[in-house]
Amino acid sequence: MFPNKKVQSLVGRMVHVEMKGERSVLEGVLTSVDDYLNLHLSGANEMENGERRRLLGSVVVRGNNVVLIHPMNE
Amino acid sequence: MFPNKKVQSLVGRMVHVEMKGERSVLEGVLTSVDDYLNLHLSGANEMENGERRRLLGSVVVRGNNVVLIHPMNE
Amino acid sequence: MFPNKKVQSLVGRMVHVEMKGERSVLEGVLTSVDDYLNLHLSGANEMENGERRRLLGSVVVRGNNVVLIHPMNE
Amino acid sequence: MFPNKKVQSLVGRMVHVEMKGERSVLEGVLTSVDDYLNLHLSGANEMENGERRRLLGSVVVRGNNVVLIHPMNE
Amino acid sequence: MFPNKKVQSLVGRMVHVEMKGERSVLEGVLTSVDDYLNLHLSGANEMENGERRRLLGSVVVRGNNVVLIHPMNE
Amino acid sequence: MFPNKKVQSLVGRMVHVEMKGERSVLEGVLTSVDDYLNLHLSGANEMENGERRRLLGSVVVRGNNVVLIHPMNE
Repeated sequence: MFPNKKVQSLVGRMVHVEMKGERSVLEGVLTSVDDYLNLHLSGANEMENGERRRLLGSVVVRGNNVVLIHPMNE
Repeated sequence: MFPNKKVQSLVGRMVHVEMKGERSVLEGVLTSVDDYLNLHLSGANEMENGERRRLLGSVVVRGNNVVLIHPMNE
Repeated sequence: MFPNKKVQSLVGRMVHVEMKGERSVLEGVLTSVDDYLNLHLSGANEMENGERRRLLGSVVVRGNNVVLIHPMNE
Repeated sequence: MFPNKKVQSLVGRMVHVEMKGERSVLEGVLTSVDDYLNLHLSGANEMENGERRRLLGSVVVRGNNVVLIHPMNE
Repeated sequence: MFPNKKVQSLVGRMVHVEMKGERSVLEGVLTSVDDYLNLHLSGANEMENGERRRLLGSVVVRGNNVVLIHPMNE
Repeated sequence: MFPNKKVQSLVGRMVHVEMKGERSVLEGVLTSVDDYLNLHLSGANEMENGERRRLLGSVVVRGNNVVLIHPMNE
């Protein structure tokens, strides 16, 4: 399964996303993803040292700034 | 709804945008967006720790430098 | 008006450009722009804390390293 | 062999991947790769100074944020 | 003149190039350029605070990591 | 000669490559390159202050993270 298909298979699941930039870790439900790995998360929280720091809610993340993504509880 | 369509659905609303670079957080009305997530904001303010730091007014943001975008008051 | 058209509408005007990288703020007259937001500025100055630091003159800026651009005196 | 073919030849092997961003080194089995060097790793660990810091498990890495990749034990 | 044409017009001239990354300023003769603003410089020097730090000679620079370029002595 | 052709002309030679990211300088034999400047190096060493720090061996480098490349002993 190609990497983008792997991410598509995670739609509907809680994911952990690490990004470039200052606020760098998000966790939320992956609502949609496209071939550029742009992500739409719902119920997303900004995380710090494994703790929730701020509720963002519905958020779109630009794919080129995603460093990595993995499903939670796997 | 794909991530870029989600962002298009926010046109006319106040959005919170986090970017790469030193002045990293903007809030303003999303006036237009294209498929690269280049954004045109109006009445935009540069934010720091949740406070307005500087009024930018009409500003165009390069999509590849957008880390995340979410609607305000949601 | 799409974001790239908004920038094209600024040709001939003074613009403020924030970029990635160490010398991050430029101001000058926008002479030309293409769809990647590559910019050609004339009479450009490198700015620091709102003051002119160095005259660059004619300068080309790579679009992907533009964080934001806005017209001055608006 | 072109660079992307070289990476494809590593599928099924343990690889060492260095990335941009704060958590910058991963090691795991390369499960799939596409032409953008997006990678799917399984059994991936986040590394620090050559030691395992955290088990990530199944993880997708965005190709543009991969600095380098090399096979382990070569 | 579009920005990439402006850069092409500088072939054969001494240029000043600022880049992302640790060694961020180069000066040399622009030998060739393509539409991505990949640059081939000859007789290039790495600069620090306006002084030559190291002779690189013939060097190719990746366009996406070019922040800005301008002709010298203009 | 366009910049990408210049790099192709270096296949088989020792090259010095500076990259974005923490481990930023590599030296090795350029085994292959594609039009994105993705590089395959063999016998590559990670360098620090002009000294070999670590042998990487066969390594693939993502082109967009290459800041510059030049031939050694030129």
